Amino acid sequence: MNDISALLEPRSLAVIGASSKPEKSGHVLLKSIIVNNYQGKIYPINPHTEEILGHKAYKSILDVPGDIDLVFFLLPGQYIGDLFDHCRQKNVKAAVIVAAGFSEIGAEGAEAEDKLRQLVQDSGIRCIGPNTIGFINMQANLVASFVLFTNWQDGPIALGAQSGIFGGAVADELMARTVQRIGICKSVAFGNKIDLDETDFLEYAWKDPSTRVIALHLEGLKRLRPFLSLANRVKVDKPIIVLKPGRTDLGARASASHTGSLAVDDELLDHAFRQYGLVRADDLSEFLDYMKAFSYQPLPPGNRIGLVTFSGANGVMASDELRDHGFELANLTDSTLKRIREFLPSWQPPSHPLDLWAALEAGNRLVHEEGILSVLNDENTDAVLVILLALSNADFDGMREIYQTARQQQPDKPIFTVMLGGEVKQKWLKDIDGLDMPVFESTRLAIKSLQAMRWYSRIREQIKPDPVIS
Amino acid sequence: MNDISALLEPRSLAVIGASSKPEKSGHVLLKSIIVNNYQGKIYPINPHTEEILGHKAYKSILDVPGDIDLVFFLLPGQYIGDLFDHCRQKNVKAAVIVAAGFSEIGAEGAEAEDKLRQLVQDSGIRCIGPNTIGFINMQANLVASFVLFTNWQDGPIALGAQSGIFGGAVADELMARTVQRIGICKSVAFGNKIDLDETDFLEYAWKDPSTRVIALHLEGLKRLRPFLSLANRVKVDKPIIVLKPGRTDLGARASASHTGSLAVDDELLDHAFRQYGLVRADDLSEFLDYMKAFSYQPLPPGNRIGLVTFSGANGVMASDELRDHGFELANLTDSTLKRIREFLPSWQPPSHPLDLWAALEAGNRLVHEEGILSVLNDENTDAVLVILLALSNADFDGMREIYQTARQQQPDKPIFTVMLGGEVKQKWLKDIDGLDMPVFESTRLAIKSLQAMRWYSRIREQIKPDPVIS
Repeated sequence: MNDISALLEPRSLAVIGASSKPEKSGHVLLKSIIVNNYQGKIYPINPHTEEILGHKAYKSILDVPGDIDLVFFLLPGQYIGDLFDHCRQKNVKAAVIVAAGFSEIGAEGAEAEDKLRQLVQDSGIRCIGPNTIGFINMQANLVASFVLFTNWQDGPIALGAQSGIFGGAVADELMARTVQRIGICKSVAFGNKIDLDETDFLEYAWKDPSTRVIALHLEGLKRLRPFLSLANRVKVDKPIIVLKPGRTDLGARASASHTGSLAVDDELLDHAFRQYGLVRADDLSEFLDYMKAFSYQPLPPGNRIGLVTFSGANGVMASDELRDHGFELANLTDSTLKRIREFLPSWQPPSHPLDLWAALEAGNRLVHEEGILSVLNDENTDAVLVILLALSNADFDGMREIYQTARQQQPDKPIFTVMLGGEVKQKWLKDIDGLDMPVFESTRLAIKSLQAMRWYSRIREQIKPDPVIS
Repeated sequence: MNDISALLEPRSLAVIGASSKPEKSGHVLLKSIIVNNYQGKIYPINPHTEEILGHKAYKSILDVPGDIDLVFFLLPGQYIGDLFDHCRQKNVKAAVIVAAGFSEIGAEGAEAEDKLRQLVQDSGIRCIGPNTIGFINMQANLVASFVLFTNWQDGPIALGAQSGIFGGAVADELMARTVQRIGICKSVAFGNKIDLDETDFLEYAWKDPSTRVIALHLEGLKRLRPFLSLANRVKVDKPIIVLKPGRTDLGARASASHTGSLAVDDELLDHAFRQYGLVRADDLSEFLDYMKAFSYQPLPPGNRIGLVTFSGANGVMASDELRDHGFELANLTDSTLKRIREFLPSWQPPSHPLDLWAALEAGNRLVHEEGILSVLNDENTDAVLVILLALSNADFDGMREIYQTARQQQPDKPIFTVMLGGEVKQKWLKDIDGLDMPVFESTRLAIKSLQAMRWYSRIREQIKPDPVIS
């Protein structure tokens, strides 16, 4: 196993190809490092200028007076080779090679990549790339990416991505959200994996005290067996969510052209993921929602769901999805039904799924509070799905207190929410923000996420690490 | 077939149970009618007040001086019977019964519903409900719903929903969008279908010149054979999108409790939908996205997709989804490849899926424009999927012109878009708004929507109405 900490925790860094021009990657990356308050030494390297973004620029890393732990290469690939010698002389420990145009473009690029790999191996310098956007380590205040992030949210997720700019765009979307943001403490884009890869990142994330959830976007797996063997041990402590496209012949062909990844029999790989306890997401939406679910909520201890809705139609649709995904509607206890009957109109018998729309006559806040808490506290429910109709007819102040009370009363029972509506939905989302209460864009995604957590919870209960493999 | 136009096109209406209290349904519905500029006569009926929202109130409809075409009943169910006599005396043509608490609550409610049905039949008055939120007919400026809509967007979709408040919440969410809004010209919530039902609405929507796309949320089908037989004829002229939950035993049970709908064998029903050419959505997200796709774009004439991306990773994921949904990556012509090579970096050979990220060095606008238009104009593509990375690194002004040009150059070829990103995504979405260019929240939903359109297009090409059935 290679130690990725040389990369993620540098005391000083140099940006070769730093630029004064705002549109250049060598400017954006440097700016990102500075505005996010990295506390180590920062050395822009550029032979044509004296100073960039308030930092003295040097012609070469050999001119830098102090030590350099980490070097960013923001130059076309052909210039990197010569500069590796300088890195060796300066005793540089790690490097990020941003340039694209290597194995992902075919035979010529593969040859260049082989040369670069040899250089890296000879140097002993730990590298990510080529073809990477950079990385983020919030515990080092280090946001080193050529997509500018000024508002990165720290949190319990370690996110590794094969592809740089794709990961950058996903993160840009996540971090631009004003509600329901997820927190990411470490993020690395591996690129073509000339040296460090997903297995190294997995090992680091496993031991990282800031990380509770590990999420990996993979196109190829550089070292399949070591990866699976490690994952088998890691998953006992932390869930590993995997997005591995290239499932089909068409996708695999595109992947080979994109990253030079070799095609793997997806059926075998899928089987291995299941066997070793990795949670596989089928597409990007699921990948992001699983991250939210796992990082926000406790694991469900069973399959019995309490379903609180404000429209019978939502109860029907959610029931279909629950059945599709292996869940049961809980048998609510008599005391819960009695508690609910208190505020239902006299003509409406309580049933499950609960439909509380007509009950709102008794008071919007009362009915939301009693509806959610009574089902949550029912001893027969293992998790609760709440489908709200965020309409002005149902509006009230105090949704935040209800969810806070819910969490206090049942800290170990997952609460998943779906909201339908316009303005009031935005109000309620803001109101409960920061409570780690996940709200999903669709009932299907909510229930798929809950299923992923339930599956992982069973895997972790039942399967101990296999002594032969680990 | 019953004529639903008596309901949808009244020259005058009365709201029995109109209220001065803003929180009451009888207030919101009246307000909705008024603020949306209904041009017919409006008569609030309330024995305890002189005037509501600027309109003179009457103690009874019998006191109203003029004719009344349509009556809304906003009273508890037990008061409706007596008032039906008044309606007959006033020669009322149609009624909306809002009250819930009928067959959906069990035996007692079913008995009350039977009585009401008898009354309705005897009266000859055309009804929707009970258990409905109302209806909307934009061609009559009539927005009659107890969820207040002040900003309803007219358009080519006729939307029928079984469940009132659910449909209201969905519409509230759709109409609150600031971009990518879909337009709905007619919307009816059938409720318990004591009289008029989905088959009547389908007939009306078929003949309605404002309607191009018909979308139906159904729990039960009141008259299965007439509905299917009619649908078989309608689908030749207009696509019919169906969301029919209650697929599973759990869902069917919830549906029986919700609307009193009888369980239907879902496998048989699904088969019938396919045979008769109805496009079935699996869940609410698909239902809404299909509406957008069908109402915004032309039908794809074939399976060959041009895939324009700005990250190899998106190309891989989209390729998987294309394969999953029966599509092929088009063989781009030599002249297209030549056109693309002009702006790709020298080290990058053009390949399909196109990955244009590195090409952006040649200019953000140029590369987006040339990338999209060259693939769109390729004779080998039947439709184009564009996956944009909306990052500041890729930003430019003029996205709207590119999409406008695209539509002008290829009016009959569908263009589907997915965007990943934060601030720039919001900018681009605003920029192209109003062009009927659908942007999807996920690649999967984009490709599923395209598949639905392709399926329908083949159905329409191949299957003529069956003379025996129609």
